[in-house]
Amino acid sequence: MTPLANDTFLRALAREPTPHTPIWLMRQAGRYLPEYRATREKAGSFMKLAMNPALATEVTLQPLERFSLDAAILFSDILTVPDAMGLGLSFAEGEGPRFERPLRVEADILKLRVPDLARLRYVTDAVAEIRRALKGRVPLIGFSGSPYTLACYMVEGSGSDDFRTLKTMLYARPDLLHRILEVNATAVAAYLNAQIDAGAQAVMLFDTWGGNLTSAGYETFSLAYARKVFAALKREADGRRVPAILFTRGGGNWLEPMAGAGCDAVGLDWTVDPTQARKRIGARVALQGNLDPIALLAPPERVREEARRVLDAFGAAPGHVFNLGHGISPQARPESVAALVDEVRTYSMRMRETA
Amino acid sequence: MTPLANDTFLRALAREPTPHTPIWLMRQAGRYLPEYRATREKAGSFMKLAMNPALATEVTLQPLERFSLDAAILFSDILTVPDAMGLGLSFAEGEGPRFERPLRVEADILKLRVPDLARLRYVTDAVAEIRRALKGRVPLIGFSGSPYTLACYMVEGSGSDDFRTLKTMLYARPDLLHRILEVNATAVAAYLNAQIDAGAQAVMLFDTWGGNLTSAGYETFSLAYARKVFAALKREADGRRVPAILFTRGGGNWLEPMAGAGCDAVGLDWTVDPTQARKRIGARVALQGNLDPIALLAPPERVREEARRVLDAFGAAPGHVFNLGHGISPQARPESVAALVDEVRTYSMRMRETA
Repeated sequence: MTPLANDTFLRALAREPTPHTPIWLMRQAGRYLPEYRATREKAGSFMKLAMNPALATEVTLQPLERFSLDAAILFSDILTVPDAMGLGLSFAEGEGPRFERPLRVEADILKLRVPDLARLRYVTDAVAEIRRALKGRVPLIGFSGSPYTLACYMVEGSGSDDFRTLKTMLYARPDLLHRILEVNATAVAAYLNAQIDAGAQAVMLFDTWGGNLTSAGYETFSLAYARKVFAALKREADGRRVPAILFTRGGGNWLEPMAGAGCDAVGLDWTVDPTQARKRIGARVALQGNLDPIALLAPPERVREEARRVLDAFGAAPGHVFNLGHGISPQARPESVAALVDEVRTYSMRMRETA
Repeated sequence: MTPLANDTFLRALAREPTPHTPIWLMRQAGRYLPEYRATREKAGSFMKLAMNPALATEVTLQPLERFSLDAAILFSDILTVPDAMGLGLSFAEGEGPRFERPLRVEADILKLRVPDLARLRYVTDAVAEIRRALKGRVPLIGFSGSPYTLACYMVEGSGSDDFRTLKTMLYARPDLLHRILEVNATAVAAYLNAQIDAGAQAVMLFDTWGGNLTSAGYETFSLAYARKVFAALKREADGRRVPAILFTRGGGNWLEPMAGAGCDAVGLDWTVDPTQARKRIGARVALQGNLDPIALLAPPERVREEARRVLDAFGAAPGHVFNLGHGISPQARPESVAALVDEVRTYSMRMRETA
C-alpha cells in the first residue's frame, strides 16, 4: 500500500500532535457542489450513484479537488445495511430515505437476518476503488448508520418528527426492538469490517437519531449496541490502528458514556460547547466537530470568524479533528467552504506557534 | 379572589414540600381528546378557537374534567405576539404554524414594533374567563413563545428542519436578528404582564427552538432575551409570587445558565437525565418534566412504569413538577394519560411516606 502523504487526520484521532488541525466535512461529497449534481444527474438517482463504484469514486474525490481536506469519506448512505436486508431503500427527489417494506409486525421482525455481505459488494468495491484513486493523498473513512438509527428508519419507514412508530414499539414491545438492534449490531460490525478489509482506514458510526431517546433509553437502545459494534471491529490494517468515531446528534447529554463506549473519538454536534466537552471527556478520546453547518450559508468572512471561534473553544491541545456539527447543507456556498478549510489550516497552524 | 383549593403546583415551584408531586401536561388541552376535537370543529379553525374566549375556556377546562391535573394552562398559541405585530398567523390542517408575511428584508425588520396589547385582548379576556371558570380549583398558567423562538418563525415563516433562513441572518446579519429579538423581548414581557394582570398565576416561556443554536449562540440570541423578559415581569399577584418557568427543547447542555436566567423553574425535555439535572442545578430553582411524550402512545401499564422511573430519577426532594418533556402527541391514548396522572399522584405520595 502507498504510504499516506497526509496522515494528520489519523494522528489527531490518536491524540498525537499535528502541524495543523485536520478537517473534513460530513457529507462533503454532496449537493452543494455543482460537479456532484452533474454526476448524480448522469447516474439517474442517488441509489444508482451510490451503487456504482466508479461514480461513487468520482464524487468521493470531487471535494478533495476543490479543497485541502485531510480525509476522504466513502460516498454511500447510512442505510445500506437494512437495504441489503431486503427492506427496499429509495430516495424521492428532495425528500429523505424511505423503506418500501418497514418492520411493523412481529413475524417480519423475527425473520430479520444479518444480510449476506455479497449484497453490499458495491460498497466494498467502491472502498477499494477509492483507495486506489486516492493514491495515499489522505486517509479514507468508511461508515454506517448506528444500530439504533438503522432501527429508527427500519420501523418508521422514513424520517419523522417524533419517530412515534419506533418509540411506541420501544415502550410497548422493547423485546422486539432489542431483537432488531441485536441483528443490526452484528450486521453493522461485519459491514464495517468488510470496509476495513477493502481499505477503509477509519470508520464512523452515525447515530443520527440517538438524540431522540431519554438518557436511560440512550444507554439501553443506542449505546449498548454501538458498544457491541466497536468491540467486534478489526482495529488494525496495514500495521496501523483503524480508529472508530461515534457521532450522536443531540448526544451532548451523554458525552462521558459515549467516550467510554470503545471508540477513539466522539463527534460533537454544533450545540455542544467544545471547551465543556474537553473538560468532561479529558484526554480519554479525541473530539471531532463542530461548526454549525448553516454557518456555511453565510459569506466567507463570517465563516472564518466562526471557524476561529470553534478552534479557540477546542484549544490547541492534540486530539481535535475539525468538522461540522452535522452534514453539510445543500445550500452551503462553495466559496464559504473554501474559506473554512483555509482558515482552519492557517489559524490552527498559528495557534500551535503561539501555544 | 377565591383561595386555591389545590396549590401544590405553586408550592412545588417555590420548592416547598407538597403531599404529592403536582402534574400538568404541555398542550394538555389538545387533539388527543375527542371533546377537544369536537370544540375545534365547532370553532372552524385553530385560530378561531384560540381567539374566542368562551371556547378557549371550554377547551382549557376539558382535561381537568377527565384527569386530576394540578394546573390549568391557557389555551392559546406561542405565536400570538408576532401575529399581533401583523405577520399573519395561520395553521393549515395537520401542519404547523405559518406566517403570511415573514420578516425577510431589512426595511420590514426596521419597521417592526411592539404591538398594541389591545390586539391581544382576546388572550387576556380568555385568561380572565378561565380564572372565573376555574373557581380556584388549580392555578392557571399563562405563556408565550420565547423571543428567540418567535424570531425563528417570524424570519423562517414556518417550522423548519434547519431554520436556515433565520440562521443565515444570524451569521450574516446578527444586527438584524438582535433588532427583532429586542422588540420581541419587550413585547413578550408586556404580554405576559398583561396575562398576569388578567389572572395568570404562573407564566412559562416556551423556547421550542433554542436547542438549534450553538452554546455561544444560545447565550447571545436566546437566553439574553429570556433574561430581559424575566427581569421585566411582575412577580406578585393576589399577594402571592407569580413563578416563571423557562423551557428550552434541546437545552440539556445549558441547564446551569438557564437556572441563572431569573426564572423559578427550568423545564427539562425528555432527553435530560433528571438525577444529573438535580446535581447540576442543585436547589437553585425547581425542575419541571420530563416523560417522553411518545410514551403516552403505549398501554397504561407501561406508562405507569415510565412514570415511576421518572419520579425515582427526580427523587423525593421538593421542587419537582411532573410534566412531559415536550407537548403531548395528538396520538396519545387518553387511558394512558389517565394512568399517568393517577400513577404520579399515588406513587409520589408513597415516595414521601418512605423517604
